[in-house]
Amino acid sequence: MNQPRSAWLYQRVARLIETQIANGTLRHGDRAPSVRSLARSAGVSIATVNQAYLQLERRGLLRARPRSGYFVAAPARPALAPPSSRPLRNRRPRSVAAEVIDTTLASLRQSDVLALNSAVSVFTGRLNGRLNRLTRQVLRDEPDLPNRLSVPPGDEGLRRAVAARLALAGAPTDPASVVITAGAMEAIVLSLTVLCRAGDTVLVESPTYFGVLQAVEQLRLKVVEVANRPDVGIDVAAVERAVAGGDVAAAVLMPNFNNPTGALTSDADKRALMEILEIAGVPVIEDDLYGDLHLGPERPRPLRAFGGGPVVTCGSVSKSIALGYRIGWAVSPEYADDIARAKFCTSVACPTLQQRVLSRFFESGGYDRYLRQLREELAVDRRRYREAVAEHFPSGTRVSDPAGGVVLWVELPEQVDALALFQQALDERIGIAPGLMFSAKGDYRNYVRLTMGAGWSPRVERALGRLGALARAAAAR
Amino acid sequence: MNQPRSAWLYQRVARLIETQIANGTLRHGDRAPSVRSLARSAGVSIATVNQAYLQLERRGLLRARPRSGYFVAAPARPALAPPSSRPLRNRRPRSVAAEVIDTTLASLRQSDVLALNSAVSVFTGRLNGRLNRLTRQVLRDEPDLPNRLSVPPGDEGLRRAVAARLALAGAPTDPASVVITAGAMEAIVLSLTVLCRAGDTVLVESPTYFGVLQAVEQLRLKVVEVANRPDVGIDVAAVERAVAGGDVAAAVLMPNFNNPTGALTSDADKRALMEILEIAGVPVIEDDLYGDLHLGPERPRPLRAFGGGPVVTCGSVSKSIALGYRIGWAVSPEYADDIARAKFCTSVACPTLQQRVLSRFFESGGYDRYLRQLREELAVDRRRYREAVAEHFPSGTRVSDPAGGVVLWVELPEQVDALALFQQALDERIGIAPGLMFSAKGDYRNYVRLTMGAGWSPRVERALGRLGALARAAAAR
Repeated sequence: MNQPRSAWLYQRVARLIETQIANGTLRHGDRAPSVRSLARSAGVSIATVNQAYLQLERRGLLRARPRSGYFVAAPARPALAPPSSRPLRNRRPRSVAAEVIDTTLASLRQSDVLALNSAVSVFTGRLNGRLNRLTRQVLRDEPDLPNRLSVPPGDEGLRRAVAARLALAGAPTDPASVVITAGAMEAIVLSLTVLCRAGDTVLVESPTYFGVLQAVEQLRLKVVEVANRPDVGIDVAAVERAVAGGDVAAAVLMPNFNNPTGALTSDADKRALMEILEIAGVPVIEDDLYGDLHLGPERPRPLRAFGGGPVVTCGSVSKSIALGYRIGWAVSPEYADDIARAKFCTSVACPTLQQRVLSRFFESGGYDRYLRQLREELAVDRRRYREAVAEHFPSGTRVSDPAGGVVLWVELPEQVDALALFQQALDERIGIAPGLMFSAKGDYRNYVRLTMGAGWSPRVERALGRLGALARAAAAR
Repeated sequence: MNQPRSAWLYQRVARLIETQIANGTLRHGDRAPSVRSLARSAGVSIATVNQAYLQLERRGLLRARPRSGYFVAAPARPALAPPSSRPLRNRRPRSVAAEVIDTTLASLRQSDVLALNSAVSVFTGRLNGRLNRLTRQVLRDEPDLPNRLSVPPGDEGLRRAVAARLALAGAPTDPASVVITAGAMEAIVLSLTVLCRAGDTVLVESPTYFGVLQAVEQLRLKVVEVANRPDVGIDVAAVERAVAGGDVAAAVLMPNFNNPTGALTSDADKRALMEILEIAGVPVIEDDLYGDLHLGPERPRPLRAFGGGPVVTCGSVSKSIALGYRIGWAVSPEYADDIARAKFCTSVACPTLQQRVLSRFFESGGYDRYLRQLREELAVDRRRYREAVAEHFPSGTRVSDPAGGVVLWVELPEQVDALALFQQALDERIGIAPGLMFSAKGDYRNYVRLTMGAGWSPRVERALGRLGALARAAAAR
């Protein structure tokens, strides 16, 4: 209480460093802040910091090295645990889907978990060398990139390349309609932001990608679900009924290889969908993320190729070129300006470097040749995964025969709780996605989605066998 | 009508290429798609594509090069203009702020416009060489980066570095509380998403950064404004009155160098604010973007250093290291998990490469030395800009004396319409930000914000003289 002020000060400084060591900010071997900089930032004298560091050295927390400063010593006893109780005020209860996502995010950071729930792809990895070479070229040619902002709608070369790819896919596109985004997911979120107001109703597929459902929830939108069936894709009649009421603000559709069903909606149904939605005045947000990964002979056309009303075509390089780049696009002659402004006001811009690298990648050619090879390998893996499911999973299991993309949709016998299976699998270091994440209503409780991005290996084979055993045990209960 | 099917097909293919040339997707000198790839993607025979290309060659649109394929010929006449009429269905009228943002985005892409409205900084540019060297090192050491996903909350090394910086700034932080985001703007948007529901009321400063106001509008939130005064910062009494009603869901505050006023809120007022907000149960989203750019002797402390209730501290490397990297953070022991999940469900992740590079940048030291130099130069420029405004602008003009950051807030005589000045300045290739963008109510119609990121040069000096002349003419009207 009556300590002199200087004593109090050096103890405060010592506590600051001690806390950083305890919570892992400073770790064994790290250099502690220099005496001078710490004195300045803590607003104390250099003598005070020296006193604090001497105390920490005496207590074995720091070690001085001549002419190098202070370093964090090896812990003599277990490091202090970080604070375990966190205040939870103002936090709403998490939904089951949110819990699953949190658990999944944590598991994706653990290298010993086999990710059968992530699009991290062994196939795209073979482009890394070429992409890294292009990166070095770009850095040499444009050394000011770290501080150049790529203002929305983004890099012109990349936008031209995206327009050219869409034209090849059957939907001629003006580069001015292309907005570069942080992957297809941001493209969808920005489109929803532009097209909907809170309380509006959005038409989504059931099942659909859980990110879409989370985004819809974050934006406080209501949903009406229409079926996407593994065999035929989007249920056109259901869409017609859903929009008849007139209060649907937008439709999020994935006709080219729905995630998770893998279904391709036919050209005839796409044309019918566009007619129905145009008449109803409902703009479409199309998730065309997997369009390039068709297993059939032809790249399916995006919805825009079939006429009708406004469409935002969303895509990315994440599934076929570079998952870690976080580059995608929203393409729409109608809403490009609004989407670009929404991008600027939520994440400002995409990194300049990756846009320049991808622009050169497309310009330099060879992507189609690479895609052909990739698709052939995906076709082989699809067969292997399906055979493994047929062999190991309980009788009564059904599995999709996807026309493209990288996921399998597995329906287990009704008594199997896929959420419990998810937990059991994770205990055995296998990541899968339980079905209820893919429905706003929590349907598909006996479904799981398997992602084939891990490729095929003895480890994957063993994991599928183990999953099957867990599912058989659950089915027998 | 009765053309044979093959004739119709080759004309369709020819039109596809013609459209791409007309809208700029394919430009003079570009290679046209290979005959084989176009045949496959258009679903026609190779003979049909050959026929189409022959027709385009005859019409002078393509030129064949032996063994190289077809290239786009130089235009013999002005290129066809892209379609000028765009359907506008389902689009709401844009606000004045939105119009200004669209105009500003367009101007930022024109290299002949002097950007006195952008934080693109001549100062940070000197780190480019070092950042590019680190990038090459990272690519060499971790060649699989293009396809490695940095799952939220993001790169561990970078999160530790952010926690260490915050600790040095007086707010000891556990790295587990740090979520890496696409700049501070995304950190703020994600925090609002986590803390508020549509229709909730958010407390914001007046004036405040226009991106915050746009985000609040996108999320359909209501605002209550409290003054941020250029001399003393946040009006604490106004905050106390605003939260008294009990219906404020969150407060977005910028006590360390408000954008645009540049004001620093005092430690005593920060402490009072945190007490008031804790008692009212209002969580704080703090925009600490400019904290490192203090012109006074000490780095001002973030709000978390003053106790009180939950805070999300938002920051980024955009203003002091690398504007083009799009890397920032949201730091909160209370809400880190929710923010990480929201990040995953809107933009999935930040690019892995930039996070690794910045992690090494902080680890390798020297940032504080660089910051000291940067701040000294900013202090000189602040004086020069203020003197130029004093010299050239009409009498009655007032200008802020910012304690940090990179902006000046200029109040013009009442009769000057800053929106008109914005347009006139842009006609003369000078970009400024009109005051009304910084208020939800459209206040500050006779204010402009000048950003000092362009540094000081004869061109800047001339531009400030020209701006002053335009303002004098408007004041004399």
